Amino acid sequence: MNDLDLDKLFNPKNIAMIGASATLGKWGSIILFNILNGGFDGTVYPVNPNERSIMELPCYPTVGDIPEPVDLAMITTPAQTVPSLIDECGAKGIPFVIVVTSNFSETGSKGAKLECEIVEKARSYGMRIVGPNTMGIFCAKSELHALMPPIIPLHGPVSMFSQSGNLGTQMLAWGESEGVGFEKFVCSGNEGDLTCEDYLRYFAKDEATRVILAYLEGVDNDSELLPVAREVSKKKPIIVFKGGRTDAGSKAAASHSGAMAGSTHIYKAVFRQTGMIEVSSSQGLMDCAKAFSYLPIPQGNRVAILTRGGGWGVITTDACEENGLVVPPLPDDLIKKLNKILPEYWSHGNPVDMVAVISREPYLKCLEILADWEDIDAIITFGGRENITLKSPKKSKLPDEFKAALSAFNPQKENAQGQDKSIKLIMELIERTGKPIIELALFSSDLDRNSFENYHPVCFPIPERAVQVLRLMVEYRRFLNSSA
Amino acid sequence: MNDLDLDKLFNPKNIAMIGASATLGKWGSIILFNILNGGFDGTVYPVNPNERSIMELPCYPTVGDIPEPVDLAMITTPAQTVPSLIDECGAKGIPFVIVVTSNFSETGSKGAKLECEIVEKARSYGMRIVGPNTMGIFCAKSELHALMPPIIPLHGPVSMFSQSGNLGTQMLAWGESEGVGFEKFVCSGNEGDLTCEDYLRYFAKDEATRVILAYLEGVDNDSELLPVAREVSKKKPIIVFKGGRTDAGSKAAASHSGAMAGSTHIYKAVFRQTGMIEVSSSQGLMDCAKAFSYLPIPQGNRVAILTRGGGWGVITTDACEENGLVVPPLPDDLIKKLNKILPEYWSHGNPVDMVAVISREPYLKCLEILADWEDIDAIITFGGRENITLKSPKKSKLPDEFKAALSAFNPQKENAQGQDKSIKLIMELIERTGKPIIELALFSSDLDRNSFENYHPVCFPIPERAVQVLRLMVEYRRFLNSSA
Repeated sequence: MNDLDLDKLFNPKNIAMIGASATLGKWGSIILFNILNGGFDGTVYPVNPNERSIMELPCYPTVGDIPEPVDLAMITTPAQTVPSLIDECGAKGIPFVIVVTSNFSETGSKGAKLECEIVEKARSYGMRIVGPNTMGIFCAKSELHALMPPIIPLHGPVSMFSQSGNLGTQMLAWGESEGVGFEKFVCSGNEGDLTCEDYLRYFAKDEATRVILAYLEGVDNDSELLPVAREVSKKKPIIVFKGGRTDAGSKAAASHSGAMAGSTHIYKAVFRQTGMIEVSSSQGLMDCAKAFSYLPIPQGNRVAILTRGGGWGVITTDACEENGLVVPPLPDDLIKKLNKILPEYWSHGNPVDMVAVISREPYLKCLEILADWEDIDAIITFGGRENITLKSPKKSKLPDEFKAALSAFNPQKENAQGQDKSIKLIMELIERTGKPIIELALFSSDLDRNSFENYHPVCFPIPERAVQVLRLMVEYRRFLNSSA
Repeated sequence: MNDLDLDKLFNPKNIAMIGASATLGKWGSIILFNILNGGFDGTVYPVNPNERSIMELPCYPTVGDIPEPVDLAMITTPAQTVPSLIDECGAKGIPFVIVVTSNFSETGSKGAKLECEIVEKARSYGMRIVGPNTMGIFCAKSELHALMPPIIPLHGPVSMFSQSGNLGTQMLAWGESEGVGFEKFVCSGNEGDLTCEDYLRYFAKDEATRVILAYLEGVDNDSELLPVAREVSKKKPIIVFKGGRTDAGSKAAASHSGAMAGSTHIYKAVFRQTGMIEVSSSQGLMDCAKAFSYLPIPQGNRVAILTRGGGWGVITTDACEENGLVVPPLPDDLIKKLNKILPEYWSHGNPVDMVAVISREPYLKCLEILADWEDIDAIITFGGRENITLKSPKKSKLPDEFKAALSAFNPQKENAQGQDKSIKLIMELIERTGKPIIELALFSSDLDRNSFENYHPVCFPIPERAVQVLRLMVEYRRFLNSSA
């Protein structure tokens, strides 16, 4: 199994869509629509004995009627029809089949039996199955959007395998608004045949994948996922979110993916030993995807905090300390440097609270001084993006003269230019010092789309999320050091 | 001190702006601008010996020159000028003065001495001081936006006192995008004179205030805040976020508000005893503000979960169990009822996973059945708002016929109408059953502004936040029961 090659699965030359439908709203039509709308590089052959053409493509009665060899088939027809369709795909020599259909092992013993049957059949043909009960796959390279939801993810360095289709595809969609790009995605479904372990091995070898995300509910006792993960973790971060951590959650998981969720304590220990980065929420999964994709791993746990609001400095310091990060005191020479830039009432310590200084130049100078401070490993900074929009309420008593002056003033534009300058400096400082710099943007409206896609700044709306991410990066650094 | 009346502070007939400036960008001009732009009900008198008029208002050399009695003065001039200005305000008989100026006790012993001086002076005149080192106050009733940042908050039932101006005003601004409305706000600054305890007593009596938020760094040993809080908590929820929970955070707090942050363990215990609802992040503060404002307090800890994605059901169940909430099994009669609505492969348990059913009618029926289930106290529901926008990527291979069909189709509008229906049903079910129903909206773009302001649905983007809020509501219910 070591050399299992999933290239044809993620980059097929062509796809047979078995159960493609001309009826809008049926899953066969929705997935076909998503593939065509996603701009897939290859050819799609709808297969349906009752149609001549679907979405202007010629439709074939069976896969056997398709005039050339087929790399990948997708099946969306009811469970009881799947075994004979697997036979047809086998006879055609199709190497990969994605079984979207549900009502297999996740619904009980009858479904489990049917699942065994299709897997045995597939093996007899040397065919590999994704699913059953999967929401599909995505690949940026081949522009393959073989998914149930109509998602067109951003392209980027993250690949994900997920034992939940909804949670996984939501990450793809969420990545778009968070500026996190994906390379490959697979919803592993019931894992009747191909398992998380197979996808992990493949992503490990895949050059376009730099960061691996996993949503796991459980793995079989004989799975090699964890030993494999330990090797992969030395080269690429694997960020894992475990569902079924509690008894009740574990029961829910059994009826969802058929997984045996296993003991939480064992998983936690194993994740730690294998260097897998365990997050405790869906939010954490996305936050880590962003940070591990676009920031260097810090060398240690010492953090400088730059803020224009004392309270934010206090709670960020609390969060750091509670998460094993250190906020070291400022040395005298840095205090002297900062004295030249800031008014006398600045905090004279770390967190560096600029107090009411709101112009951009001193902010950027402080940031540069902190980045060059040798005794810190990372920076959390507030203030590069605050952008409270001036609104005129109904009862404004402002004289007309001022209203006119205001309408000529374009804070949005000014701010966008200023932000661009901040982001460029931050990117330059990260590059030069090798230290991660995380920004706080307290409003999502502060995030400028362009700078996001051009520079990938790592920004969060609340400091607690920045701190959680840094804690996990520091733990990963410890794993890398201990296994070097 | 029991009968301290702060009505004139929050609802002054007029304000003297001492240090008002004609120079845009100076704090004196910024606050004046914010007051005028906010549509304050009363009169504003700029006070500045060097100007004749500011923003078209007549300017007075001193407060003594103002031709009528003054309810409230604000001071923005440098620290050393404040004592004599307090004398002038005292001579004029002004009952309340907001000292915005910083460089008092928060910067060391010299500043502390100056702070004592102004407080002693104020007391000799029977005058009360907000601050010093405050970012100001807000009141919805009087449309008073006497704040440093240009924020026009939504109006609503929440009043807040904050020992951080930045954190507090950010909550006001954040409330706008989160649909949380405020009644009164005060940044208590260094609390040289008026303290959190005074503001708490006042908010407790204030009829327009239903929910109280607090950001606290520390209180003096002789403060009566906590005993007062215990009484207030029986009538109104007090949600508190404590800064300075760690040694390092506590040091940062000392240089910020001059507060002695005190032992975390003691605070935690005291918050519990007084029924105060302690949150552990800035996000939690806003989430609780929303939930306690717009949802009934559940009677117990039993939760029904409705989802269209198994993975979300699993992680929500995990989060519930980890937070002391129970996800009880579905009784047979409910399973029978749901069997009539859902396809055979639904989860047949709680969480109720509708699997791939995406139409709205069965969703609404399930929601109603769950709300009427006698053995649960709250509902968390996914699926009323999913709204993944159809995008056409550059390389779409969709036939023109389909593109035309798509452009005629308006999922945004369809969805808005459907959402409106969902929200109305949810509001009706909350009203009828007295149970809180929290929705999950995985994308902020799903939130329809109108329904938000008309109905105040309580929605979060991730389930973990919904669960945290429910946990705190259940704890508050226990406090209410134990102190009844």
